[in-house]
Amino acid sequence: MTMTHPLDSALQLQPVSPGQYEGQTSPGYWNMVGPFGGITAATLVKAVMDHPQRLGEPLSLTVNYAGALTAGTFTLQVTPVRTNRSTQHWTLSVLQVDGEGELVVTTTATVVTAVRRETWSMSDEPMPEVVPPGELQRIAPGFGVEWLSRYEMRPVQGALPKDWDGAVSSSLSQLWMRDDPPRPLDFCALAALADVFFPRVWLRRARRVPAGTVSITVYFHASQAQLQTTGTGYLLGQARGQEFRNGFFDQTAQLWNEAGYLLATSHQIVYFKE
Amino acid sequence: MTMTHPLDSALQLQPVSPGQYEGQTSPGYWNMVGPFGGITAATLVKAVMDHPQRLGEPLSLTVNYAGALTAGTFTLQVTPVRTNRSTQHWTLSVLQVDGEGELVVTTTATVVTAVRRETWSMSDEPMPEVVPPGELQRIAPGFGVEWLSRYEMRPVQGALPKDWDGAVSSSLSQLWMRDDPPRPLDFCALAALADVFFPRVWLRRARRVPAGTVSITVYFHASQAQLQTTGTGYLLGQARGQEFRNGFFDQTAQLWNEAGYLLATSHQIVYFKE
Repeated sequence: MTMTHPLDSALQLQPVSPGQYEGQTSPGYWNMVGPFGGITAATLVKAVMDHPQRLGEPLSLTVNYAGALTAGTFTLQVTPVRTNRSTQHWTLSVLQVDGEGELVVTTTATVVTAVRRETWSMSDEPMPEVVPPGELQRIAPGFGVEWLSRYEMRPVQGALPKDWDGAVSSSLSQLWMRDDPPRPLDFCALAALADVFFPRVWLRRARRVPAGTVSITVYFHASQAQLQTTGTGYLLGQARGQEFRNGFFDQTAQLWNEAGYLLATSHQIVYFKE
Repeated sequence: MTMTHPLDSALQLQPVSPGQYEGQTSPGYWNMVGPFGGITAATLVKAVMDHPQRLGEPLSLTVNYAGALTAGTFTLQVTPVRTNRSTQHWTLSVLQVDGEGELVVTTTATVVTAVRRETWSMSDEPMPEVVPPGELQRIAPGFGVEWLSRYEMRPVQGALPKDWDGAVSSSLSQLWMRDDPPRPLDFCALAALADVFFPRVWLRRARRVPAGTVSITVYFHASQAQLQTTGTGYLLGQARGQEFRNGFFDQTAQLWNEAGYLLATSHQIVYFKE
């Protein structure tokens, strides 16, 4: 018997016409009022990866969450708007029929893919020296939120506060993480993992205020071959807030594999209340 | 006699039809093989600011440079794809007729605007303590590149290497900067200023290899009122590379005003050769 990994089930897309797919939201990756943002990001990457005209591998991805998806069918549009010698520019959108029967945009996105050649390379953001994953406690999924059960997370520092007492602390989190069950890393999984960090405002204020990502950008620094080498190993994720101001904060994040390669960097701007 | 500021001249857009403008590339902001990326970013922000259906102020901006603009006329398309209660999602593109007479996409972009309410606020990225702008030398514009003359830049650290000797140093730059001549700060000017940093790879390698921005994202943390308070004062810009790998590197940047407010954070992914 072959079991399909929950991520692969969630990423299934049916071609409708050139550049148009139909997908289904996945209960396994459900968040509070819609899908986990990371699964939407992963689905957009999947649509580009599947496209017959794709040139190269993902280099950058920006996803704008315009409105929550409701459970059920969605339409994904993907267009290669310009193909250069070594880069290709894509625009994407997710649409859904709303309560009034109208087709509305829930998500917009842009992707750049690129053919990479070997050049001088160097990391200016070396992996922090931290305790290995095996020596750290796995956190129990919480809040009755289903998608959290799709990930194994072992915090090094900056876990959710134990007491929601409003004490101000640092907004830095570091955690080892991977898909649960383990699944060989690819660009889709990496895009989703870039969005697993709980809202920095919860940590900074030790208060669980309503919060949700408005826009996320992921820069991919690894090749498919490097992701394959990473396999089912853990990634070290690090996230930190920069500015919390009048209803929005931004977050900067880095994801290394266990060998210390910086596979992706990511940034997002997040809405919060109060 | 009233003089129009070069930035305002460059940002002039003629409405053609709803959501469509015609603009002209500006010799004053010319880079090596096309316009300075920052002026394109500023023009996209201008199109949103001018749009009669705009809700709120810019919150995030992503610009993908698909191909260099050639000198002359361009078409800018701007669409508010979804308007929520307090956020609005925009897609934009710049098009130009190419050498074969075909209309091609040179730039794609997304913008989110938002109505902001006063909330708990805090900075997790305080302005570094640096020497004030008046005590620092202004750098002479170089490379025969016109747009550099539109900015006053006073480096604190991480100026261009004096000797292009291939020595590896840090990729951190800090500089005071503003429009030249000084111009009251607005969202357009701020978007452009987020892109003034020379390629981190030049600093890291002390080698001027060919390089160009592929995609930039700017998160705006300030309101129009805060920008007005900043006036014609200097901004402290800070930029640092994170990962340089196989033809591309990313850069993370922060822009504070002299009062120490973090007005914007920015990230970009940049192509480089060799």
